[in-house]
Amino acid sequence: MHLYIGNQNYSSWSLRGWLIFRQYNLDVEITKLKLFTPKFYRTLENITPTAKVPTLIDGKATIWDSLAILEYINDMYLNGKAWPSDHLERAKARSLACEMHSGFNAVRNEMPMNCRATRRVQLTEAAQKEVARIDEIWSEQMRLYSNSFLFGEWSITDAMYTPIALRFQTYQIPLSDKAREYQLKVLNSSAVQRWLEEASTETDIVIEDEAGEDV
Amino acid sequence: MHLYIGNQNYSSWSLRGWLIFRQYNLDVEITKLKLFTPKFYRTLENITPTAKVPTLIDGKATIWDSLAILEYINDMYLNGKAWPSDHLERAKARSLACEMHSGFNAVRNEMPMNCRATRRVQLTEAAQKEVARIDEIWSEQMRLYSNSFLFGEWSITDAMYTPIALRFQTYQIPLSDKAREYQLKVLNSSAVQRWLEEASTETDIVIEDEAGEDV
Repeated sequence: MHLYIGNQNYSSWSLRGWLIFRQYNLDVEITKLKLFTPKFYRTLENITPTAKVPTLIDGKATIWDSLAILEYINDMYLNGKAWPSDHLERAKARSLACEMHSGFNAVRNEMPMNCRATRRVQLTEAAQKEVARIDEIWSEQMRLYSNSFLFGEWSITDAMYTPIALRFQTYQIPLSDKAREYQLKVLNSSAVQRWLEEASTETDIVIEDEAGEDV
Repeated sequence: MHLYIGNQNYSSWSLRGWLIFRQYNLDVEITKLKLFTPKFYRTLENITPTAKVPTLIDGKATIWDSLAILEYINDMYLNGKAWPSDHLERAKARSLACEMHSGFNAVRNEMPMNCRATRRVQLTEAAQKEVARIDEIWSEQMRLYSNSFLFGEWSITDAMYTPIALRFQTYQIPLSDKAREYQLKVLNSSAVQRWLEEASTETDIVIEDEAGEDV
């Protein structure tokens, strides 16, 4: 398998797709393309219809959306174990994953992922509401599963919320104790530590993703 | 099972969730809530964390996103048959479904679903690009499967693109012949005909979703 990703400092969707390979130690070749450069578009145009990352090539299959990649890997290589096995938990896990996949636009726009930075931003009311909703999700799950991933074992839902944990660190968003517990669990996980290490070697600046003031 | 939906004239996400029950003749109780009324919020607040439609209640399970509902039904009641059985097709079908789930915001904003209307709109360049991409998707699939659903048999991907077929009718968007073939397949399907019939009995106006000029 071959996974195309963007700059690890910035590309939150890439991180989502990348995580499942690291969580399950799946064999994958990674090509990192510098976001929005001519080479980025030239390379992706030949393999995907949308020129976006992450894109996964597996033999004759091309999958060009992060959630679709997560579902594909789960389906083809993990025998379904990247979703909770209990059907009620799976229903909730899917709802939460989809809620992130199609929503939280204010958080995404106002707090672009920027792993190496520490910043201060003024959030709009819309973003503040979204932060509160994420805090609620994380806290609720940590009341069920203390100090752990959202459904105990790592799942696709964690892949979807991991970039948020990084954004909240960059922009120093205050969280309730329980939500903070989840954020730390994610930030300290070995997969995320590896991502951050790899991101830390990058020096390119993507100006659109530089928000807020340094603190 | 109990599915909560919004006004059928306007609620494109509701349509996506509703379709799978009709395509497979699954037993479901439907509650239609008038969008954005106090009763809408009051009812949903007690059963979902996001007060959005569609929401599905199945025993102790609550699922509050359209794609999550489609996956849930496929998983629990259809033994996976709402995705193509071939793994390459399933990979593509999932990519396309996810592409719609998280994208096409310009089309969605500039052409709100409004089943009963016939309108003219001036599309932004962003929306025009999205229309071209949808035309490309539909045409490509119709070259593989003439006069049929996107992957031959009806799939979750069709649920995701059905509201677009209705929007393109309302706003009279010109399509290539092959893409038009798909649009007609969808519009003439018995499930969509039933939706339109039910929508046609509604008289409420949701002013945010009234875009364009009558023609």
